[in-house]
Amino acid sequence: MRDADKVFEARLRGQLLEATFRPTAPHYLEEPRGLFRGADGLVLAPGCVEEVSLIIRACHDASVPVVPYGGGTGLVGGQVMPAGHCARPVILSLERMTRIRAIYPEENVLVAEAGAILADVQAAAEGEGRLFPLSLASEGSCRIGGCLSTNAGGVNVLRYGTARALCLGLEAVLPDGRIWHGLKRLRKDNTGYDLTNLLCGAEGTLGVITAASLRLAPRPRAQATALLVVPGPVQALSLLSLAQDLIGEGISAFELISGTGFAFLTEAGLGGPPPFAQAPAWSVLIDLGLGGGQEAGSALLHLFELAQEKGLVSDGVISQSEAQRAALWKLREEIPLANRHVGAVSSHDISLPLSEIPAFLRRADAAIAQLGPFRINAFGHLGDGNLHYNIFPPKGQRTYDHAAQAADIRVAVYELVQQMGGSFSAEHGIGRLKPEELARYADPTRLATLHAIKQALDPKGIMNPGVMFPLG
Amino acid sequence: MRDADKVFEARLRGQLLEATFRPTAPHYLEEPRGLFRGADGLVLAPGCVEEVSLIIRACHDASVPVVPYGGGTGLVGGQVMPAGHCARPVILSLERMTRIRAIYPEENVLVAEAGAILADVQAAAEGEGRLFPLSLASEGSCRIGGCLSTNAGGVNVLRYGTARALCLGLEAVLPDGRIWHGLKRLRKDNTGYDLTNLLCGAEGTLGVITAASLRLAPRPRAQATALLVVPGPVQALSLLSLAQDLIGEGISAFELISGTGFAFLTEAGLGGPPPFAQAPAWSVLIDLGLGGGQEAGSALLHLFELAQEKGLVSDGVISQSEAQRAALWKLREEIPLANRHVGAVSSHDISLPLSEIPAFLRRADAAIAQLGPFRINAFGHLGDGNLHYNIFPPKGQRTYDHAAQAADIRVAVYELVQQMGGSFSAEHGIGRLKPEELARYADPTRLATLHAIKQALDPKGIMNPGVMFPLG
Repeated sequence: MRDADKVFEARLRGQLLEATFRPTAPHYLEEPRGLFRGADGLVLAPGCVEEVSLIIRACHDASVPVVPYGGGTGLVGGQVMPAGHCARPVILSLERMTRIRAIYPEENVLVAEAGAILADVQAAAEGEGRLFPLSLASEGSCRIGGCLSTNAGGVNVLRYGTARALCLGLEAVLPDGRIWHGLKRLRKDNTGYDLTNLLCGAEGTLGVITAASLRLAPRPRAQATALLVVPGPVQALSLLSLAQDLIGEGISAFELISGTGFAFLTEAGLGGPPPFAQAPAWSVLIDLGLGGGQEAGSALLHLFELAQEKGLVSDGVISQSEAQRAALWKLREEIPLANRHVGAVSSHDISLPLSEIPAFLRRADAAIAQLGPFRINAFGHLGDGNLHYNIFPPKGQRTYDHAAQAADIRVAVYELVQQMGGSFSAEHGIGRLKPEELARYADPTRLATLHAIKQALDPKGIMNPGVMFPLG
Repeated sequence: MRDADKVFEARLRGQLLEATFRPTAPHYLEEPRGLFRGADGLVLAPGCVEEVSLIIRACHDASVPVVPYGGGTGLVGGQVMPAGHCARPVILSLERMTRIRAIYPEENVLVAEAGAILADVQAAAEGEGRLFPLSLASEGSCRIGGCLSTNAGGVNVLRYGTARALCLGLEAVLPDGRIWHGLKRLRKDNTGYDLTNLLCGAEGTLGVITAASLRLAPRPRAQATALLVVPGPVQALSLLSLAQDLIGEGISAFELISGTGFAFLTEAGLGGPPPFAQAPAWSVLIDLGLGGGQEAGSALLHLFELAQEKGLVSDGVISQSEAQRAALWKLREEIPLANRHVGAVSSHDISLPLSEIPAFLRRADAAIAQLGPFRINAFGHLGDGNLHYNIFPPKGQRTYDHAAQAADIRVAVYELVQQMGGSFSAEHGIGRLKPEELARYADPTRLATLHAIKQALDPKGIMNPGVMFPLG
């Protein structure tokens, strides 16, 4: 692996506009959790796919590593390459490729460049009376290319699937610089292996996504949100089942909130006024979006009444206005901020078969208790079987004092997840944080196949080295 | 490539039960359209994944080709390998691996072996009050492994996606005989490249699927079907848009039927009593499945009234009972049989961007008219942009007399599809029928990448040779 040295840079300066060359500002070298610090790289921000191709080809020819850079919001270090095997990689930022190239409302399709901010894609869809359903905490700054490369999840996966399910076609540059023009707008296209889904979720290790054709959905006509108090996770899952029986695909989100989550919001002064006099140990936030002629609030009331008869809920709040709906969502959305305020010892983005979740929580809580009197905030996308199972120091103690225990906690959680048929990375990906876990927990045949694909498509290993597979 | 000769067979007979060895019955060597005839092979029907592994490993070691065989219903010859490069391949039939291994209604998940008949999977889901939404003409005989390997489509794709979207995890044997244990029941699992979607749609060229965990859906509570007469394809698409605005995800199917389709049904004595005194030039069949508390028939009536005000429909029938619903579906479902009765000169399973369909029909009809006074039956899954655009001899003439024109017709149709951003294979796949079209119409970078993946995963080329890529 070679550095993007002065000679390399000078050659590119002869071929690219001045605007392509960016100062190496600090944000290119940092990531939100501060776990990785990037090597001082040559930051290039090409303006079109041909320039991306030119850059990647140059990197390929000179064996210079390429670190694709979207919004920089990823939580597993995929966007920053520490110094080591290479002191100066190319940091390829998509920040100048932000156009919505086209929108076809009658087809429910939108074509965006990879650097488009997720919120801008959502707004463009809304402008045409459509919904782009991908929605996550960082939507104001993350870029759609990064969302696709990491197969981002978020709050609407239950209804609309992950980023992968929303992608109909791609334009991308492969590791040798060749351009794949694959911006199809087709719902069915059985012409060979699924390269779209291979690049989505590859975290920049098989090429760089430069544009995508995206699936839009009709905007729900009637929306309402409820926060319902449940006796525990078992009843939360029965409530989900009941809601699906009654309402079918109209459930857009089904999120779990724990008592610890409420306590942390209070501790951090976040989340707005508490909805209940006493914070419930377990509650779920249900979001409905229904078609015309239906009333979402009454559907939730009907659900609540039926659930109450069955002993699945004991209390609840149903939004009567958009303002109330936003207030309920604020609770859920500010939990990650509250977590950051308290300071996690170890965070785990895990998924499990839905019916295993209550047993997992019981067993994991017991395993953590063995390690110390930690506080546990288990919250997140219950409808998808995806929990953020995060461990915090006992009240009054500092995160820092427990840093040495983080590794034991992680092992305890992931071993249990593995035993129960779950995943140690539900939506955040592998990045540079979890290649060891991938090597340990992945099926060996699958792991060997992933290696073989990487080797076949990027034999020089220039694309985002250290991500997915440990550096050799 | 070597034959599965007597020595090879004798060695396997020492390792496998007698029940694994099947007589080479004619159906293993035939396919529905009679375009390909398979080489007389060694038919093996293993009973478990370990036996599949043993067989593939033996084939790998001896360079013997493997033709995976499901229900034999594929329409592109993927299931039969003609003699040529090899006189005696192994035909690997999944017919003994038919178990539903588990069903988790509360998770909306079912785990089935690859040889399970699609209708049996549907029935198992229904037995637990759930829906397995994949539905297609051959569901009584096709097997789920084949459905996944070909990424089958059918009538419910608009709402539930193709087979790929219904697959959560796989168990499979790779081309060197290694077993991948990937039967996860997770909605989110971002741990490396998407091998599931790579094997789905690979048509047996990258390994053999032996079992799958499948996504179920809640059963709609209220169903109804309408057959609505539209002035033309433009209005049919506006009707789809209106229906999506009003009803959202509740639309399970949106199928186009042409006047030629009705004429062929009459000619073949199929489809039951005609719903209209005069067969309409264009009509659409809409199927609704709604949640509890809603009335599907009145939703369709409301849609009809609004559409009539806008001039989108002129007449229609709405089912008032399950029997009437079945009668309307019978019309649609028997069109392929009627087509077979009349005898197509050339059939085309194409897809297009939705908004291009009216222009495509205009231009394709004109291009075909240049070639002769053919009859055209354009029908199918309009909601997915997927048409079966099939060409028949003029009335009173024989298919046989026009066989020489089939190639010109095919080129005319596919060139236009390509120009308009469509696909020459929407749901049937490539098989042995369309490798030339794949080579001609696929983006060159993508094609090279497909080759690289095939080479990396099956360097000896034993898996279903001749499918996807022409034999060298």
